[in-house]
This record gives sequence, C-alpha cells and structure tokens, in this order.
Amino acid sequence: MAVSPSTYPRRLLPLFLGLFQGALLLFFALFITYDEPSAQAEDTSLVVNQAYSTFPFFQDIQVMLVVGLGLLLTFLPRYGFSALTHNFLLLNISMQWALVLQGLLHHFHHGQIHLDLHKLLISEFAAVTVLISVGAILGRASPCQLLVMATCEIPLYLASEWVIVTCLGVLDVGGTITIHVFSCYFGLGVSKALFRATQQPLHPKETPTTSSDLMSLVGTLILWVFWPSFVAVLCQPGDAQHRAILNTLLAMTASAITTVVASSLLERDGKLSPGHLQNGSLAGGVAIGVVADMAVPPVAALALGSLSAVVCVLGFRFLTPLLARKLTLHDQCGIHNLHGLPGILGGAASVVAVLVALCQAAGLAVAIGASLLAGLLTGSALRLPCLARPPERLCFDDSLYFKIHEQAESPGADSSAEEGALALQEQV
Amino acid sequence: MAVSPSTYPRRLLPLFLGLFQGALLLFFALFITYDEPSAQAEDTSLVVNQAYSTFPFFQDIQVMLVVGLGLLLTFLPRYGFSALTHNFLLLNISMQWALVLQGLLHHFHHGQIHLDLHKLLISEFAAVTVLISVGAILGRASPCQLLVMATCEIPLYLASEWVIVTCLGVLDVGGTITIHVFSCYFGLGVSKALFRATQQPLHPKETPTTSSDLMSLVGTLILWVFWPSFVAVLCQPGDAQHRAILNTLLAMTASAITTVVASSLLERDGKLSPGHLQNGSLAGGVAIGVVADMAVPPVAALALGSLSAVVCVLGFRFLTPLLARKLTLHDQCGIHNLHGLPGILGGAASVVAVLVALCQAAGLAVAIGASLLAGLLTGSALRLPCLARPPERLCFDDSLYFKIHEQAESPGADSSAEEGALALQEQV
Amino acid sequence: MAVSPSTYPRRLLPLFLGLFQGALLLFFALFITYDEPSAQAEDTSLVVNQAYSTFPFFQDIQVMLVVGLGLLLTFLPRYGFSALTHNFLLLNISMQWALVLQGLLHHFHHGQIHLDLHKLLISEFAAVTVLISVGAILGRASPCQLLVMATCEIPLYLASEWVIVTCLGVLDVGGTITIHVFSCYFGLGVSKALFRATQQPLHPKETPTTSSDLMSLVGTLILWVFWPSFVAVLCQPGDAQHRAILNTLLAMTASAITTVVASSLLERDGKLSPGHLQNGSLAGGVAIGVVADMAVPPVAALALGSLSAVVCVLGFRFLTPLLARKLTLHDQCGIHNLHGLPGILGGAASVVAVLVALCQAAGLAVAIGASLLAGLLTGSALRLPCLARPPERLCFDDSLYFKIHEQAESPGADSSAEEGALALQEQV
Repeated sequence: MAVSPSTYPRRLLPLFLGLFQGALLLFFALFITYDEPSAQAEDTSLVVNQAYSTFPFFQDIQVMLVVGLGLLLTFLPRYGFSALTHNFLLLNISMQWALVLQGLLHHFHHGQIHLDLHKLLISEFAAVTVLISVGAILGRASPCQLLVMATCEIPLYLASEWVIVTCLGVLDVGGTITIHVFSCYFGLGVSKALFRATQQPLHPKETPTTSSDLMSLVGTLILWVFWPSFVAVLCQPGDAQHRAILNTLLAMTASAITTVVASSLLERDGKLSPGHLQNGSLAGGVAIGVVADMAVPPVAALALGSLSAVVCVLGFRFLTPLLARKLTLHDQCGIHNLHGLPGILGGAASVVAVLVALCQAAGLAVAIGASLLAGLLTGSALRLPCLARPPERLCFDDSLYFKIHEQAESPGADSSAEEGALALQEQV
Repeated sequence: MAVSPSTYPRRLLPLFLGLFQGALLLFFALFITYDEPSAQAEDTSLVVNQAYSTFPFFQDIQVMLVVGLGLLLTFLPRYGFSALTHNFLLLNISMQWALVLQGLLHHFHHGQIHLDLHKLLISEFAAVTVLISVGAILGRASPCQLLVMATCEIPLYLASEWVIVTCLGVLDVGGTITIHVFSCYFGLGVSKALFRATQQPLHPKETPTTSSDLMSLVGTLILWVFWPSFVAVLCQPGDAQHRAILNTLLAMTASAITTVVASSLLERDGKLSPGHLQNGSLAGGVAIGVVADMAVPPVAALALGSLSAVVCVLGFRFLTPLLARKLTLHDQCGIHNLHGLPGILGGAASVVAVLVALCQAAGLAVAIGASLLAGLLTGSALRLPCLARPPERLCFDDSLYFKIHEQAESPGADSSAEEGALALQEQV
Repeated sequence: MAVSPSTYPRRLLPLFLGLFQGALLLFFALFITYDEPSAQAEDTSLVVNQAYSTFPFFQDIQVMLVVGLGLLLTFLPRYGFSALTHNFLLLNISMQWALVLQGLLHHFHHGQIHLDLHKLLISEFAAVTVLISVGAILGRASPCQLLVMATCEIPLYLASEWVIVTCLGVLDVGGTITIHVFSCYFGLGVSKALFRATQQPLHPKETPTTSSDLMSLVGTLILWVFWPSFVAVLCQPGDAQHRAILNTLLAMTASAITTVVASSLLERDGKLSPGHLQNGSLAGGVAIGVVADMAVPPVAALALGSLSAVVCVLGFRFLTPLLARKLTLHDQCGIHNLHGLPGILGGAASVVAVLVALCQAAGLAVAIGASLLAGLLTGSALRLPCLARPPERLCFDDSLYFKIHEQAESPGADSSAEEGALALQEQV
C-alpha cells in the first residue's frame, strides 16, 4: 500500500477537493435552506426587485472573474490551461468556503442559514482576494499549495474585513482597502515566505508570446468594461449607486489614456509595453472603489484614475525590479503595481475625502499590516513538501497538470516525457 | 446547362437557404404582425416590465449560444470557421423555422400572429436542440446535411415538447428532459443511421491542439457564467425564479470542482483532461434544469451538480469508447456525456422531487424513445448523396467550405489544391 | 536640445495625450458636477429606474465597442495589439472630447454641467463615428494621425447630427444616417485626401491568417449579439423600444443567413469568404437603425436585413476593387460596404417608411455630403509630416508601436531591428 513519492502529491489534489466537497454537502444538508416562500404580494415584488437589481451585476462580476481575469492570466504562453483552470477552481472553492464561514459567523437564525443571491455575492467578493493574491506566485506554485493558500486567506480576509469595516467603520464599497490592498500584501507575504531569500531567475517559459499577450489584453478589456458593476453592486441603490458607476467610468477612462502616456514616455523609443496596458488600464478601478459612492467631484475621479495608472506603470518599470533585487520579493503578475499601489492611493484619497481621517488611515494600516503578516505565515506553510511544489523546470508548464495533445503547431514543444522524468528526480 | 457533379452540391446550400429565406419573407408578409400599440398607461408599464425582465436574459442566452457554444466547438483545430459558422447559421435557421411552426400551431389569432420577444425566446429554445444534436456528427457532415437535420428536428421537438409538457404535464423549466435529453438521443440516432455499422477511424484532423483546446475552454467558461439565465428565464418571476438562479449556481459550482476531482482520479498520473473540464463543468447545469424552480433543499442542487459531473467524466472515459466499439455509435463531441447522462440524472431527480413520479418518468421515456427513433429516420435521410457528405479526407477541414488564406504560421497546411482534387475523385 | 527626427514623432503621442488629459482635468475641475442629491423619495426611485434601465444597455454597448469591435479589427495578423489598443484609446479620447463639446453646447446651467449616465452614453455614440472611420485607413496611419482625425471628427459629427436631427427633424434612433453613413463617408474622405492618387499596393502583412480571421469572426459574433442594445437604448421606453429590439433581431438574423447565401453564390466553388461573414452578418443592424422604432411590419425588417447583407457582400466583391482601381480610394476594412451601403439602404427605407420624405432624404444628403467634404479636409491635415505616418514597410506591424517579445512561434518574424533602421532611412 506504499504510495510512491511521485504519485502521492498527484492524488493530494482530488483528495483535498473531494473531502472539501463532501464536508460542504454535509454542511449544506444540515444548515442551509432557502428563504421561506414569501406569502404576501408585496413581499414577492420586493424579492423580485432585489433579485432583478442584483442578478445582472452578479453576472457581470462572474464574467469579470471567470472570463476576464482568466484570460488576463494567460499571458504565460505554456501555462494557459493552468491559469484558466486554477483561477476557475479557486473561485469556486473560495466562494463555497466563504459561504460556509460567513454563514457560521453572521447568518445563523434558529439553527438555519437562509441562502440568497446577496450572500453568494458577498462570498464572491471574498473569493476575489484569493484570485488576486495568486498573481504573486502564479506558475511557481502547485494547485495544492494554492488551495491551502485559499483555505487560509478566506478566514483571514473575513477577520480583516470585520475589523476594518465593522470595528473601524471604514467606508469601502468597491473593496479598495478590504480586498485589493489586503490581497496584494497577503500575496506578497506568501511569496516572500514561500521563496525566502532565493531570487527567482528568469524562467524560459515566463516570457509571453504575441498571441498569449493578445489574449491577456482581451481579458483586460473585459475586466475594464465590467468593472463599474463590481464597484457599484453593493452601493445603496439610487444616487449613490449612480454616482459610483459614473466615478468608476471616469477613473477607468482616465487610466486607459494615462497608461498609454506613461508607458510611451518610459520606453526609450516610445513604444508601448503590453504588460503596462494590461495592468495600468485597470488601476483606476482599483483606486476608485473606496471613494466611488462618496460625494467627490467628478474631477477627483479623473485625477485618481490618471494618478493610479502612472503609479502602476512606474511600479512595473522601477519598483518590481527593485523589490526583486533588494528584498528578493517575487511578484509574478505584478499585483503590487495593480492592486497594492493604486489601493494605497485610493485609501489616501479616501482619507482626504471623508475627513474621518484617523479611522480610514487605521483601516488601511490594518489591511497592509495584517495581510502581510498573515501572508508570511501562510507562505511558510506552503513550503510543506507534501504540497507538491513544482520543480523549477516544470514551472509555467501546462504539461505538469494537463494532458496536452501533441502540438503540431509548436515544434519546440520539448517539455514532455524526459522533462517529467527529470522532474521526478528533482522531487526525490 | 448540365451542372457538373462537383458544383452541384456547392450550389445546394445557397439554394436551400435562399428558398427558405424567400418563403419566410412571404410568410412574414402574410401573417406576422406586432402587437397593437398598447393604449393605456398601465399596459405600457406592463409591456415595459416584461421587455425589461426578459431582454437581459435573452441577451445572456444569445451570448451562450453564439459565442460560448461556438467557441466550445472550436476544439477541432482545422475546423474553427466551420464550427463557429455552422453553429451560427443553424441557430438562425432553426429559430426562424421554429417561429413559423409555433406561430402556425399556437399563436394564430384572426389570421395574424403577434410577434413579441417571448415568442422569439421560445423559438430560440427550440433551436438549442439542433445545436446540441449537431455535436454528435460535427466535422463529418456537410452543411446541407445539417440543414436537413435542423428542418426535421424542429417539428419533432415541438411535437415531443407538446406531448411531454402539455399532455403529460411534466415540469421542466430548464429543458433538461425536453431539450437536453431529446436532442442528445436525436443526435445519437442521426449519427447511428448516418454512419451505420462503419466504425469511424480516428481522423488526423480530429485531435485538438493546445490553442484550439484553450479557445474551447474559454467557450465553456462563457457558457458556465450565463447558464443560470438559461434555466431561470422561463420561471415564474419572484421566488421561483430566484430559487432557480440559486440552484443553478450551486449545481454549476459543484460540477466545476467535482470535474477536477473525477478527471484527476481517472488519469494514472493525476493530470486533468481538457475535454473533461470543457464538458463536466457544465453537466450540473444540464441536470438541474428540471428541478431548478422546485422547492428542493440547496444540498440537493449541490449533490446533483457533483453527481452529474462524475457521470459526465465517467461517460467520456468509459462509455463513449464502449459505445463506439460495441454499437459503432459515433459521438464526436460527447453529447451523450454532457446532455444525455446528466439529463437522465436530472430527470430521475425530478421524479423523486415531485412525487408525481409516473408522469415525469413517462416524459423522460417519451424524450428518449421518440428522439432516438426520429433521429434514426433523419439520419437515414441524411445519407442522400445529393447532400454532399464530405469525403473522409476532408472531414474536419475548413478549407472545404471556407476560402482559407495561405497560412504562413502553419507549415504543415497541405490540405489545399491536391486534396480538393482527390476529394472530387472520391465523390465521383 | 535638438530632438532627433526619429525621436520626435514618438514623443508626439504622449505629448498630445498628456496635454489633452491635463486640459480635461482643468475643464472638469471648473465646470463638471454631479446632479444634486435628489431630496424626495419619488425622485430617488426615478433616478434608480433611469440608471437601471440605461446601465445594462450601456454595458452591452461597451462590450460591443471595446471587445467586439476590437476583436473584429484583429484580422490583420501582425497588427493585433495596435488594432485593439488604438480602438480602445480612440474610444476613450473621443468620448471625453465629445463630453466636453456637448457640455459646452447643450448642458450649461448656471456655469455648471451636470454629468449623468445619459450624457456619457450620448458621448459614446459620438465616439462610435471615429471607431468606424478609422477602418478606412487602419494599419496605414500612425496613432497621432488617428488622434488628429478624432479631434476633427467629433465636432463635425456633432454639427452634422445637429443639422440632421434638430434642424431637419430626421428620425434616426439607431444612428443609421447620423452615425454609420456620416462616419463612412468621412472615413473615405480622409482616406482619399491622405493617400491622394497613389494606389495602395497589397501589403504582405495585410493578408489575414486563419487564426486572426477566427478572432475577428468572434468579434463579429459579439457585435451581432449585442447590436439590439445599441439600436434600442435611446428609444422611448415601452412599445417603441420593444419594437426596436424585435426589428433589430429580425434584421440581424436575416443578414446572417443571406450573407451565407450571397458569399456562397459569388465564389466559383461555393466556399464562404471569412471577410463576407465578418461584415455581412452585421449589415442588417446598420440598415435597421433608422426605422427600428417605427411602426413598420416585421417583414420589412427581415427584407431590409437580407437586402443589406446582399449589398454588403456585393460591395466587397465588386465595388471596393472598382473604387480602388478607378478612384484610387483605399478602404482597408471595407467600411463603405458595412456602413455606407447598408446605411444608404436604411435611409432609403426610412424615406418610404415615414412619408416625410423630403426631410429624411435631405438628412441623408447632409450626412453624405458634409462628411465626405470634412473627411477630405481632415485627411489633408493628416499628411503633416510631424504626425509620423508609418513608412510602407512598417504598416500593419505591431512592432512599430509595441515592445514585442521574441516570438518563438513565428520563425518568420523578421520585422525587427533592421526594418526599424530602414524605416528611419525612409522617413529621413
């Protein structure tokens, strides 16, 4: 019955997922129920209105996370299946896990949790943190490591969000501080603890190709289009929601244009970098979330969008290489530039905007401090050998996790049998 | 005026479509009109509400069928144009044909048929059956054969749906029995009658490439995101629709995770098969349709989603090869695994759920029996030589139907002039 | 401080965009504000209703323009980044520019412009004209040339739209005359004045590959699905909007089928041309806009859709080569076939439909005449050497504007250093 070392980690993924799914079924059977059928006509129309007003936003956000973010991550040319599938799997797992935890914490009435679309939406917001954090270690971590990370991050996010929003009273409809800043520093903490002081060399499979970069840009455009739904969905319907939509649209359009300016100025020959476009165009959406529904003037949304795009592009050009060199901090997708810096910028803007400066600043500090610490601890846990961290040669390679058909189109596809054999040697 | 044998079938497609379009114009001119303008203010607000509540669902379903399903079918690397275009063409033709037939059958008032968005939606549901059935013979059938198949399938579907829903009183908002099971066995019947006892050898153009599989996975994700709209659109607004959305979301999320478990366990080295992911993730949506709006507990939706994903993946791994070997039954896209098995599972679940067990079971039996018989007869008709069944060498090949530009990127593109010449020889 | 000739145009793009963005910030700071918070409960529900009824349409249109049109333009295989990014950039710039101009012209109250979603939508409609016109010179014009073109076209569109709609009282909810016809002849005028009498030879990078044509077809399908939202968004809610949606759906479905008929008949061997499908399927949407909300019978929408598809495909087959040969008129994307001819057809249909024939005809004449003249003048301005028109060898080439990574997959990627050097020689 001895399981060979090469087979064991392979079986860990279905084992983990199977147990999780079984426990979830048990939990649902015991505790989860739908709302009572609404008896009065007035109730019905209320339920209808609530479902009709939330459902289109919910679908937009699903498109963003499943299709848009999935495509954005396919910039690694030999890691497309893994990027799409791991993103998809983590979204589902994290959402279910957040649903369970939130049900236990908040929604227990008479031994039952009443499920509705709003609770699923709240769980989806929690899952977003995992999808962002993964960006720091994409391609260099195994699915099992990512699942452990999700398992740790969701309760930590819920605790952090409770401290920031409930205790400190921070206003943050778009999740700038609670989601983007938290998940960024959590992800960086994980990366630091996982890779320690070893600087990650440039991997040959890390460089995007034209077609993988193009698919990634399409993902950015999908995210760009639907971002206002993400920011506005939890706003108070009416003026506040209308304003959140407009502010987000203004910030996104300013980001798009400013990214072109910044990227073009930073390159010697004035050419644009696809990576800058893929990220900078979205920076305004990250930053605007925390002030989107406040009564800020429209010019502030434009300025915040422009500024966050500049910060994001500068981060890619100067800060990421610096962090990699000085702190040996590995950030595969540059989440610090897209989520960290614009998030801090948005947080700072909200301090000015609401004048309840101390609480907002404290909320920002909690998000950064707590997430970084929690990330470091989680990353250390990911070093457990049983989690099947992929060997260096097989990082960024779909063939480790997917049955890849013979590729007539790419003659250089040599990452097959002999590499697998070598991988086993490395693991042993 | 003698038409050469090679030209004749080529002209058959525009001839068929042109005649169809002309007849449709005549029919519309004679019989179709819009609703009278609503006179009272109350009526207007009702119409507005109806249009506003149906239109977003309708758009979601159009995205699913045109973009999502189209991309899902592009897994055949040299058949992308044909897959996208045939899917698109069949959707339009089948919808118009269903509109005519349903108008004649149900909606005749004073010699006029009043068109509205709801009738277009019902026609689109009918068209879905054709798009599913095509999956069984994709790549090995000519456009003319597919059009004849659509022409036969739409009235048969309407009859089957009338028997199942109106006569037997079966409840099936999501079309699990009426659409998925029916179209699956119809498609398998067509395949069996078309190819008879000849086992189809593995075609060299049948194997997906990495990039074609990736596009197909993107199609799956689009279908996955919008599936709740498909299941919920015809529900009673209010509690039932809300419940249908939630049940579908739960079933889809369980399918996604369980597919990874099942696929990983079935492969010796624990790797995931793209084909399993592309289909298994959607199996829960197929199965849940028939019980989505019923008062089932949430855990049932989760369990049904998990179970249907397991059944779907097992079907791909064991049943499809078995059916191909023992029954020489050819099922190109594995529609039996995605639509047949989960559909039967959902039907069985609905038997338990509603306790009017006899009628539900009878409905399921009608769907399977009638569709299989009808499919066999239709498939026999498709053997008519004038329908231009593609020769074996040119199956799965866009160049038979599309002007393909010289492909600098694929040096192995040898499927051009000489193959065409050979094809003509084969046909003669 | 002397800037070398090769660097100067590179710096022009960020300079132009930076100044524009700075001026916009100033303008917003001085003049733009949100609506006052609505005091009464009734007002709130009105605002909510307006936002809820417009926002989903707005999102659909954003998907069309950013993702759908962007992908449609990627049929040039080595120009994908540029097509996607220039389309995206021009949309944002044109929208902001239209917002400023429309604010100055129409919406000034007490020194303030009140921003709402409806005004953003109107600006987006103005921006569409630029995105269409660009199709005539795509790949042969520099970003700076395109920006100057946008700067000229937006005010000219606003003037033309004011004459057509306000002065002449032309009815045109879907923008057939005001947007499609105007932007087509403006674009052709620009092309004529920019390239003068020099016939553009077939460029080696101009020919689509299978995969670029396939991406472009996906773009068409996305546009096809969401087109009804574009036509119906500005209609009177209620019957008129419902009718506009139905008419557009009918016209689009007729176009899709008729395009296959026409393309198949025009080619000797009955094969379909991807270019015909990409454009003809959408022609019905262009033509129907002007009559979509009128009380036309459904058969008229079908017939108009069919006819415009025929005209579009015939245009590609016969008129575009003729115009190129006789008038040396260069039309890269065939905008005359997709926007010009179907637009005129729709305009003619509206003449019949409304019986206020003179004004409709005059509106059409204004759109054609004014746009052509304005386009010729704008195109002459684009010949300014400082706008960095790309040298012939580097037309249709991303590497002129984007940092392209080494492409392992395309061994023939020789458009790099030495071409750049040659380009500089050509420019000097």
